[in-house]
Amino acid sequence: MPADWTLHPQLDKDTAAVGDLPLCRVLLIKDAHYPWLVLVPRRPETVELIDLDEVAQAQLMTEITRVSRALREITRCDKLNVAALGNAVPQLHVHIIARRRTDAAWPRPVWGVMPPLSYDPRDMQELIDALRRKVWIEQPDLSTS
Amino acid sequence: MPADWTLHPQLDKDTAAVGDLPLCRVLLIKDAHYPWLVLVPRRPETVELIDLDEVAQAQLMTEITRVSRALREITRCDKLNVAALGNAVPQLHVHIIARRRTDAAWPRPVWGVMPPLSYDPRDMQELIDALRRKVWIEQPDLSTS
Repeated sequence: MPADWTLHPQLDKDTAAVGDLPLCRVLLIKDAHYPWLVLVPRRPETVELIDLDEVAQAQLMTEITRVSRALREITRCDKLNVAALGNAVPQLHVHIIARRRTDAAWPRPVWGVMPPLSYDPRDMQELIDALRRKVWIEQPDLSTS
Repeated sequence: MPADWTLHPQLDKDTAAVGDLPLCRVLLIKDAHYPWLVLVPRRPETVELIDLDEVAQAQLMTEITRVSRALREITRCDKLNVAALGNAVPQLHVHIIARRRTDAAWPRPVWGVMPPLSYDPRDMQELIDALRRKVWIEQPDLSTS
């Protein structure tokens, strides 16, 4: 019998929980440099995208889309970066990062460029609240889809 | 009427063509540090994953899976990195990179770490030929799917 899913301790340490979608836990990376989310499929022993079956892959794409649209609408960012890397933390996780041409790492990818910047706790909670409303409560805005 | 799709000149310059899948052009980045592919959906004016409609997103996931499996089987890599960034080249393109714990950038992401290393032309052609066989000719190996 497969082990139950638990969040990798490094992801737990680096993030605040936003909520659960049908497949993924949605997390906010505690780095105020960039609005930076991570989607973690709640499937044990899953390392690569290609470890997911086709149904889960389709669901992951749906959840990436829903979260990406919410993040872009809230942040009015210039570009989204979406990536499944996992060189340091093997548990499959997908980064969705809102990038601005004025951010600390632009145009480089964010990993390893700047040490994390602490959030003002109220700013972090406001972002989490806005994401929860957009992702879990509001209907998709059909004019932009 | 939308413009016809053409490959972005920077992607054209940095890559060799492997072939076309129903949605994407498959390219090999000319950097012998890493077996590094790029999938470019042949859709004009497409920047973000969320610019694709649901049918194209599903097809993209199918093509990412097929190419990822082929690349992993051929290279016996330790990890796949899959990413849509596009900060420098706005045309939507998805990187699929075969990583080894002994490669020049490990465990960092590959972007910006090392200047590209020229391929021996025969090695590059062998990799392209192996990819063409796996992706376009062989049936998927059901024992690993």
